[in-house]
Amino acid sequence: MAVYTEVSDDDLKAFMAGYDLGEVVGCKGIAEGVENSNYLLQTATGPYILTLYERRVNPADLPFFMDLMEHLARSGIKCPVPIHAKDGKTLRTLCGRPAAIITFLNGMWPRRAEAWHCYELGVALAELHVAGRSFPHTRKNNLSLAGWHELFEKVGNTTEQVEQGLHGLIKHELDDLAKSWPQKLPSGVIHADLFPDNIFFMSQKCSGLIDFTFACTDFLAYDLAICMNAWCFEVDGALNITKASRLFAGYESVRPLEAIEKQALPVLARGGAMRFLLTRLYDWVNTPAGALVKPKDPREYLRKLKFHRGVTGSFAYGLA
Amino acid sequence: MAVYTEVSDDDLKAFMAGYDLGEVVGCKGIAEGVENSNYLLQTATGPYILTLYERRVNPADLPFFMDLMEHLARSGIKCPVPIHAKDGKTLRTLCGRPAAIITFLNGMWPRRAEAWHCYELGVALAELHVAGRSFPHTRKNNLSLAGWHELFEKVGNTTEQVEQGLHGLIKHELDDLAKSWPQKLPSGVIHADLFPDNIFFMSQKCSGLIDFTFACTDFLAYDLAICMNAWCFEVDGALNITKASRLFAGYESVRPLEAIEKQALPVLARGGAMRFLLTRLYDWVNTPAGALVKPKDPREYLRKLKFHRGVTGSFAYGLA
Repeated sequence: MAVYTEVSDDDLKAFMAGYDLGEVVGCKGIAEGVENSNYLLQTATGPYILTLYERRVNPADLPFFMDLMEHLARSGIKCPVPIHAKDGKTLRTLCGRPAAIITFLNGMWPRRAEAWHCYELGVALAELHVAGRSFPHTRKNNLSLAGWHELFEKVGNTTEQVEQGLHGLIKHELDDLAKSWPQKLPSGVIHADLFPDNIFFMSQKCSGLIDFTFACTDFLAYDLAICMNAWCFEVDGALNITKASRLFAGYESVRPLEAIEKQALPVLARGGAMRFLLTRLYDWVNTPAGALVKPKDPREYLRKLKFHRGVTGSFAYGLA
Repeated sequence: MAVYTEVSDDDLKAFMAGYDLGEVVGCKGIAEGVENSNYLLQTATGPYILTLYERRVNPADLPFFMDLMEHLARSGIKCPVPIHAKDGKTLRTLCGRPAAIITFLNGMWPRRAEAWHCYELGVALAELHVAGRSFPHTRKNNLSLAGWHELFEKVGNTTEQVEQGLHGLIKHELDDLAKSWPQKLPSGVIHADLFPDNIFFMSQKCSGLIDFTFACTDFLAYDLAICMNAWCFEVDGALNITKASRLFAGYESVRPLEAIEKQALPVLARGGAMRFLLTRLYDWVNTPAGALVKPKDPREYLRKLKFHRGVTGSFAYGLA
C-alpha cells in the first residue's frame, strides 16, 4: 500500500502541461506498490499510471528502468512503456521527486496463485529473459551477496526480536552462500521481484508484467528461484511441487535451462530467500508504528531459507 | 486512506457477471475515503468506482444513499449514480459486504482551498439543498445532539490524553448546545460531510460532489456551518473571512438564507465543530497503532469550537 507523496491539483496541472495527453479528468492514489507513490491518472486520451520515485530508488538507476521498459515492449513483452513528454523526456520532476507517466496495463494480479498461473509466469519470465538479451545496458544487482552483508550489518542484533538465534543463523548462512554462490551462469536482465502483484492476468492468460524497479543484470536462474519462492509455497510453509513443476515447465517451453543452472537452483533459492528475509527484516525494524505501510513478516522467508538448506538437488523442486 | 477489504480477482469476476459493464480490465484499490473500501474499476465501457461498505455504515441506510444519488443526478446535480445490475439492484454483496458500483466522476479535489473554490462550493451546496426538496425519503442525523452524547460516553476520560480539562469542556459545551440548539429551521437533505476531498473541480468549476454516506435530513444551514468549518479556517486556526464570505455569497446566489438561519449560524458552527471533534476523538483513541488509516487530529476541531464560542453573531463570519 503506497502513496507517500500527495500530489496537489496545482502541481499536477503544471506537470501535465509538459505532456500531450489531453485534459486530466482524474488522478487517484492507488494502493499498489510499496516503494513508490502511484497514481491512476485519467486523461482525455485514457488511463495512465503516474509514478513518483521515493527514497529507496536511486535516481541514477531510473534511466535504466525507462529504457528497459521501452526495449522490452519493442521486443513484444507486455509491459508498461513510459510516455515521452513534449521535450522528449520520460523522466521528469514532480513534487521534488523523479516522476514518470507510464501506460496503463490491463489485467488484475492473482490474489490466490494456482498452478496454471505458475505455468504462465514461467513462460512470461523466460520471454523476458530472451527479450533482455538484446538490451545494451547493464545494472549491477545491489541486492546480491555484497548487498546482503550490508543489510545484515544494518539490522544488526535487532534480528533477535524476530527469532532468537537468528543473528547467528544468518551469519552462518551468509558465509555458506559466499562460498557456494555460482561464479558463472547464463546472465542477463532479470526482473528480480516478480511477485504475484507484479504480473497481471486476463481471461486465464498473462496480460503483462509491471514494476521494473528492481530489474538488474544477474543470473537468469536466480530470477526463477525468486519466483519459485514467491509463488510455489503454501501458507503453511510447504513447497507445492505441482506449482514449481508448472513454473519450470512454462519457463522451459521458451528457454530450456542448462544443466549448470539446474544444479545451482538450490543455492540460488537459498540466496533468493536470504535477499527477501533481509529486506523484510530491515523494513520490520525500520517501519515506524502507525506508518501507512504494514511491513511483511520476515519469518515467511526464514522458513523458506530453512527449507532450501535441506535440499540436495533440483529434483526436490519437481525439476528433472 | 482506505481499502480495508481486499477483493480477489475471482470474487470480482463472479460479482461482475451480474452487471452489463463489459470485461474488467483493471481494478485498483484507491486511497480515497476513510469509511469504505473503494476501487477504481476499469471495464470495456469505461471507469467506475466500486465501493464496499464497511463497519461504520449501517446497511439499512444504504438504499437511502443510492436513491438520493439517483434523485440528485436526475435533478441536475453532478454526482455519481449507482449502476443497476442485471437484476435491477444497485446494492449487492461482495466479500460479505454490501457493495455498489457507481459512475466515475471527472475532476480532482482541491488540496489547497482558495476563495474561488469556496464560492463554487457554496453554489453547489445550495443547489444540492434545492434539489433535495423533492426527495421523498428522510434519514435521521445520527451525529446530532443525541449522537454526540453517545460518542462522548464512548470516549469517556480518554479525552484527557488529548488535552487536560477537555472532558469538562465538552460536557459543559454539550449542555450549552442542548439548551441553545435551534428547534426549527429550514430542513431537508444535507450532505453533512462536504470536506474538500468530497467535491471535484475541473477548469476552475465544480465538476461534482461525492460520498453521500453521511447524508441525512437536518437543518440546511447546519450543512453550511460544516462547510465553513472545513473550508474557511487557516492552518493556524484563524477564520479566513474572505473564504467564508465567498462561501455564503455562492450559497445565497442560489438560495438566500432566512434571518433565523443567519442568527443560528454561530450555534450551528459550534455544533458542527463538536460533531467532528467527537468523531475524531473517537477515532483517535480507537485506531490501533499500525492501522492503515492515520486518525485526524481532534485538536483542529477543538480550536474551531473554541473560536465559535467567542462569536456573538454571523457578522463575525463575514455574513451581513
